[in-house]
Amino acid sequence: MQTAKLKQKTQFTDGICDGIWFNARIAPAGNPLQTISNATIVVRDGVIAWMGSQPEMPAEFANLDIPRHDVAGKWITPGLIDCHTHLVYGGTRADEFALRLAGASYEEIARQGGGIVSTVRATRTADEEMLFQQAARRLQPLLAEGVMTIEIKSGYGLDLETERKMLRVARRLGEHYPVEVVTTFLGAHALPPEYTGRADDYINLVCDVMLPTLHSEGLVDAVDVFCENIGFSLAQSERVFATASQLGLPVKMHADQLSNLGGSQLAARYQALSVDHLEHLSEADIIALKQSGTCAVLLPGAYYFIRETRLPPIALLRQYEIPMAIATDHNPGTSPTTSLLLMLNMACTLFKLTAAEALMGVTGHAARALGKADTHGLLAVGRAADFVMWDVDSLAELAYWSGFNPCSAVVRGGVVQ
Amino acid sequence: MQTAKLKQKTQFTDGICDGIWFNARIAPAGNPLQTISNATIVVRDGVIAWMGSQPEMPAEFANLDIPRHDVAGKWITPGLIDCHTHLVYGGTRADEFALRLAGASYEEIARQGGGIVSTVRATRTADEEMLFQQAARRLQPLLAEGVMTIEIKSGYGLDLETERKMLRVARRLGEHYPVEVVTTFLGAHALPPEYTGRADDYINLVCDVMLPTLHSEGLVDAVDVFCENIGFSLAQSERVFATASQLGLPVKMHADQLSNLGGSQLAARYQALSVDHLEHLSEADIIALKQSGTCAVLLPGAYYFIRETRLPPIALLRQYEIPMAIATDHNPGTSPTTSLLLMLNMACTLFKLTAAEALMGVTGHAARALGKADTHGLLAVGRAADFVMWDVDSLAELAYWSGFNPCSAVVRGGVVQ
Ligand SMILES: [Zn+2]
Ligand SMILES: [Zn+2]
Repeated sequence: MQTAKLKQKTQFTDGICDGIWFNARIAPAGNPLQTISNATIVVRDGVIAWMGSQPEMPAEFANLDIPRHDVAGKWITPGLIDCHTHLVYGGTRADEFALRLAGASYEEIARQGGGIVSTVRATRTADEEMLFQQAARRLQPLLAEGVMTIEIKSGYGLDLETERKMLRVARRLGEHYPVEVVTTFLGAHALPPEYTGRADDYINLVCDVMLPTLHSEGLVDAVDVFCENIGFSLAQSERVFATASQLGLPVKMHADQLSNLGGSQLAARYQALSVDHLEHLSEADIIALKQSGTCAVLLPGAYYFIRETRLPPIALLRQYEIPMAIATDHNPGTSPTTSLLLMLNMACTLFKLTAAEALMGVTGHAARALGKADTHGLLAVGRAADFVMWDVDSLAELAYWSGFNPCSAVVRGGVVQ
Repeated sequence: MQTAKLKQKTQFTDGICDGIWFNARIAPAGNPLQTISNATIVVRDGVIAWMGSQPEMPAEFANLDIPRHDVAGKWITPGLIDCHTHLVYGGTRADEFALRLAGASYEEIARQGGGIVSTVRATRTADEEMLFQQAARRLQPLLAEGVMTIEIKSGYGLDLETERKMLRVARRLGEHYPVEVVTTFLGAHALPPEYTGRADDYINLVCDVMLPTLHSEGLVDAVDVFCENIGFSLAQSERVFATASQLGLPVKMHADQLSNLGGSQLAARYQALSVDHLEHLSEADIIALKQSGTCAVLLPGAYYFIRETRLPPIALLRQYEIPMAIATDHNPGTSPTTSLLLMLNMACTLFKLTAAEALMGVTGHAARALGKADTHGLLAVGRAADFVMWDVDSLAELAYWSGFNPCSAVVRGGVVQ
């Protein structure tokens, strides 16, 4: 993170972070209902100095001798945010996918070494450079779609050394690519094979050793738990949350995906940033989320890939005005997708979100899910000049197409990437 | 087509169509079960001269002084074939998509000028150059995924002039981009507004004027009909098929998507190349297809986009060994996708095809659906050296990822594109 900041600073003193983008159409909040046409953005030192309708631009900006960019009517949105990914891991699970389609049972696949254990094994074995290269390859299509902030979880190491390796790779991705990486420690993702039958002992390791150590090394921005019958119990989840709180780290939770253990209400008690998945969320849970200001993160890619049929309670979330974010949940077992735009399309097609909700889900609401609503997901004067240009007639196209990328440019801190 | 042939000929005499690709893994038939590892392809004059396991290469090829390409273990498949698209049209239907998600009824959308009529209007108004540019933009992501042959239908003109314009654009795409375009006349796609209540009169126009004229201009490779309650009746479809047969043109049909009118059996009687969609196909239909050697074309993108719940009868198609092709059905109303690889993923996820079936669906079986099984969709000695290199560990990855493109190179007539 230091490196990235220094890099930006150098650019600013060079004065290359000044510019005027004119003849644009802007959705400042990522919401097509609040748009400015014939719009101009003035950037000084990498920050938005003015933004509005061209005819209203004050003379002080009109006379500036800085580079001018004719956007030719393109749409501008805030940089996209993928607020839930497991981008760093070894191997793929493509052969397992093929075996299952060919009729293999879960038992047969387990016997052939499939399932999450195979990803844990491949991640433990891979060296840091290989993990970096593999994750970088998956990161690039996301960046090409205008993703400027990405959350990356650990959770395929399940031992101190490998969890550290994953988080270090995540940090390095943010240093080497034009993207801000938010790391989440997900030691409580699954029970490692060497702890079979000793889940509480593993949670001791997570709380007493892994989390404090990795936090002290500056590798942890937030803490996540997979609270589920096939994950960790409510009591175990609470132990992790209590430890995170003592360390001053924000929490979030994989909750209510396959069943309702009460995870969302626990998360709300700990003022979680977000609860994610939510196919089994109840109205009482939603009331708790409302009170704690917790975001709902919807993951249509996983819903699609595992052929889930129970939908998250979209109408109730809407009724209580819970912010709904959308993310890829990129992971090798249940959501091997590298397109956040495809997730917009799936959120609309499978979950019937509106196009405006889908766009808010990867801008303003995704920023909230990362605790970054004050700085991310919204274009405004005084904020960083991080934005994306789209070669579309209508912003609805971002959700309408699938497999089509209309991103024409990414501007970061006022610099065209 | 002339232009493309001349172009290739020039390249051949330059001798740049010779080469040896070694250290490859090959799926000659697009079928992962029939693969060659440590494989070599020898290309002379743009044609595969030898192909097989490296140690078995005859000395005459080993000693050739032609360029050598180390494929570094990548997979090689035949060029992909998208055998059903409506790629050429004016406008998008993104705003209609957004309105519908926001709760607008079909009536409200029709009142706002939505539906297929809006695409017909936009296509009629657009000039040929604009249609070409818009279609080219949608074609390029398909080419980037290794699509080397694409079928493109008319059917948004619904008058002689505009149908001609669409087919001319389709032909031009094949001249300007490294892709072979197969044109299909789909005058009987929908009833144009000026013929409301006079469908038989419109079919007269299609059969007596449009089809013979466009065929005489060399614009028609095949003829398609949308046989459906919201399209054309069985009797009207048969009139089009009879006309096509008299002209010596092969036929195909949009059949059994929303209901079963008996379209597939009619298509079988006319030895159709393919019947496409097939959610309502019956076992009796399948028996008819088996006898006529007609392909089934599955279109999971449309199934997904319109939230269809009735699946095509995959198990029965398998049981009768009907070749199943897969295509994008790219169109602005029901399948706005520009990723054939995403269709592989959806065919596996939504239709539970195996990974091998999905790959056959866009190679060997797609070639059959275009009547090109003798020349396309299979790598073999004596065939054109048209193939794609994939940077994957397993061919199953072509169906496993979504929004990720592992295509690393396309070779056409022995020339790296
Ligand atoms: Zn997850
Ligand atoms: Zn179609």
